[in-house]
Amino acid sequence: MSVKYAVLGLLVQRRGYGYDLVQRFEEQIGPGWQLNAGAIYVALDKLEQDGLVRPIATEDAIAPTRRRTVRGAPRVVYEPTERGMERFDEWMKEPSALAPLREELHLKLALSRKNDLPRLLELVAEQEQICRRRLEEHADATPLEQLAERNAAWPALAAAMVRDAESEHLRATVAWLGRVGAAMRTQLGAAAPA
Amino acid sequence: MSVKYAVLGLLVQRRGYGYDLVQRFEEQIGPGWQLNAGAIYVALDKLEQDGLVRPIATEDAIAPTRRRTVRGAPRVVYEPTERGMERFDEWMKEPSALAPLREELHLKLALSRKNDLPRLLELVAEQEQICRRRLEEHADATPLEQLAERNAAWPALAAAMVRDAESEHLRATVAWLGRVGAAMRTQLGAAAPA
Repeated sequence: MSVKYAVLGLLVQRRGYGYDLVQRFEEQIGPGWQLNAGAIYVALDKLEQDGLVRPIATEDAIAPTRRRTVRGAPRVVYEPTERGMERFDEWMKEPSALAPLREELHLKLALSRKNDLPRLLELVAEQEQICRRRLEEHADATPLEQLAERNAAWPALAAAMVRDAESEHLRATVAWLGRVGAAMRTQLGAAAPA
Repeated sequence: MSVKYAVLGLLVQRRGYGYDLVQRFEEQIGPGWQLNAGAIYVALDKLEQDGLVRPIATEDAIAPTRRRTVRGAPRVVYEPTERGMERFDEWMKEPSALAPLREELHLKLALSRKNDLPRLLELVAEQEQICRRRLEEHADATPLEQLAERNAAWPALAAAMVRDAESEHLRATVAWLGRVGAAMRTQLGAAAPA
């Protein structure tokens, strides 16, 4: 449940409501996380149950003339409690485990039979395209080293680090897919009649 | 729910019961997935509900003299149904999305303030150690290229591909952590009194 603490951290930055937090999460963490917006609302409920955030007002109370959300319910604005601010600081200091690597393609590979090879080779090419497209989105970003040398301000530098993590992961995936594709072609070549 | 299809695939290989499938999953997919054993049992329930697998017997019926599981309940052995075998083949052919990259450390970075830097630098060093330890476990594995050149048998080659994916990911993470650590030290140096 690390999303819970991320939502808490966003509220420590400044108060907010559900959809606002969805947007800020996506801006600050980037697309690599593939946030499911529902997770933000689950996190808010859990944080409120744990006494780490509290609803301070509805958007109605703050700006009664603004239009309501699609469902007609007023937006609830949250802020961290004192315990919430302490808990966030504690979380920031706790060790972080390495996340699992859970690619569906790995499952397919591990469970495939040799006659799946032609289709697997297509899947490898598809994933390579996805990675390359996403890498293009990173192409204009200033490299981390340059920002560090220029002594960029902290939040910008931290954001560049997270972007850099995604780029590195995508480049590594492309390199791996390249090796896998080559090995698959060797197998197919060996299997083909001479 | 890709674990569901992986469990189905394991049962297509040969019938099995819960804990046996946990072990086979870990053997064939490797430690990078960080399997939660409970997910196998959830998958079995779902597969049975969907009519893709069926319980064929309990271990009691097969080997009545073997001892029962810890809870005293007999082990239920499953096999795929005909529809299950078809569904597995379909799944193998479906496109696979790229998995999200969800590292807690990325959340901490994105939400940190400059005074969190000393602790973040420690977290970076801790993650680097975790990665290096896990890379050591891969050190003795035959490189993918060598296996491909030797025209290794398919299941062994596929398993090597999955292992290689984990190694590549770990090496990429180490490279990223190195850049991040260096950038953090530059910031701390600039912040320190001259």
